[in-house]
Amino acid sequence: MITGHVFIATSLDGYIARPDGDIDWLLARDDPREDHGYDAFIADKDAIVMGRGSYEKIATFEPWPYSLPVVVLSRRLAGTPVPDRLRGKVRFADLAPAVVMRELELDGARRVYVDGGQVVQAFLRAGLIADMVVTTVPVLIAAGRPLFGDLRADCDLALVASRSFPSGLVQSTYRLPS
Amino acid sequence: MITGHVFIATSLDGYIARPDGDIDWLLARDDPREDHGYDAFIADKDAIVMGRGSYEKIATFEPWPYSLPVVVLSRRLAGTPVPDRLRGKVRFADLAPAVVMRELELDGARRVYVDGGQVVQAFLRAGLIADMVVTTVPVLIAAGRPLFGDLRADCDLALVASRSFPSGLVQSTYRLPS
Repeated sequence: MITGHVFIATSLDGYIARPDGDIDWLLARDDPREDHGYDAFIADKDAIVMGRGSYEKIATFEPWPYSLPVVVLSRRLAGTPVPDRLRGKVRFADLAPAVVMRELELDGARRVYVDGGQVVQAFLRAGLIADMVVTTVPVLIAAGRPLFGDLRADCDLALVASRSFPSGLVQSTYRLPS
Repeated sequence: MITGHVFIATSLDGYIARPDGDIDWLLARDDPREDHGYDAFIADKDAIVMGRGSYEKIATFEPWPYSLPVVVLSRRLAGTPVPDRLRGKVRFADLAPAVVMRELELDGARRVYVDGGQVVQAFLRAGLIADMVVTTVPVLIAAGRPLFGDLRADCDLALVASRSFPSGLVQSTYRLPS
């Protein structure tokens, strides 16, 4: 069974980016001396699914940070060419969460890193997220792209672990009903 | 100097109540065997300021749970009579946060419990909150009355402490810039 896994940072008021996508508020509070567990998280993942917002932010980084295959879910990008430097690493698709997960499973993937607000929300609605590591940054930014959104019903979570860091980050891991 | 203090529970997606004010999702996950620190929090407070939403919810409880003087900030209730059973315990007022805090200070109050989403938001905008104890409940409810809202600028927070409970609550205490 293929499963989706979230590892994401949010302001205390629930935003993963400002309205224009800016994550300055996050980078300014990221203490590189602290190990927030990203390397351990990514170590057992086989693929990454993200939205256009995340892709466009990450594509500004040099070098491209991922060795895993990345699927960018975007109606706008689907059918457009992937930039040369990302060929073989990234593909654009306009697929429902269940369809992209079935395709990845046929490719042999088992554990998929799901990133970006709207994509996480769509995967939650589809019941495709097994667990979430949510890191809360000690700041209120008042507006932006929300981590969570509409659901068909309450989503009950089980807290697996929670820890805090000297920088003020609080990181909680939740398991979703299967 | 009089200061405002918040002690509030929120769903992981940032709501303090459903759209109609219902907090069933919170009560269902409140394990009475756990001490979440409310008694210790309230012990050194002198007064309570809340909004109409919180007041109307709490007024359905029997008996009225507060021995401290309560000010309900509400344009709609201001000028209407306080119910008999709450006379001397509650007053209704339509005052700006700074004005109600000055009045309470003149009455001798020093530490004020500030409750309710819109009231907390107004006090945050006015710079009248010294610290917040935010208890995150492990559920997504997708819609409701948000804990946080508009601000004039980013609000930087300092994490004082964070702890979790077997029930899955995560409680973090933040200090605000003074």
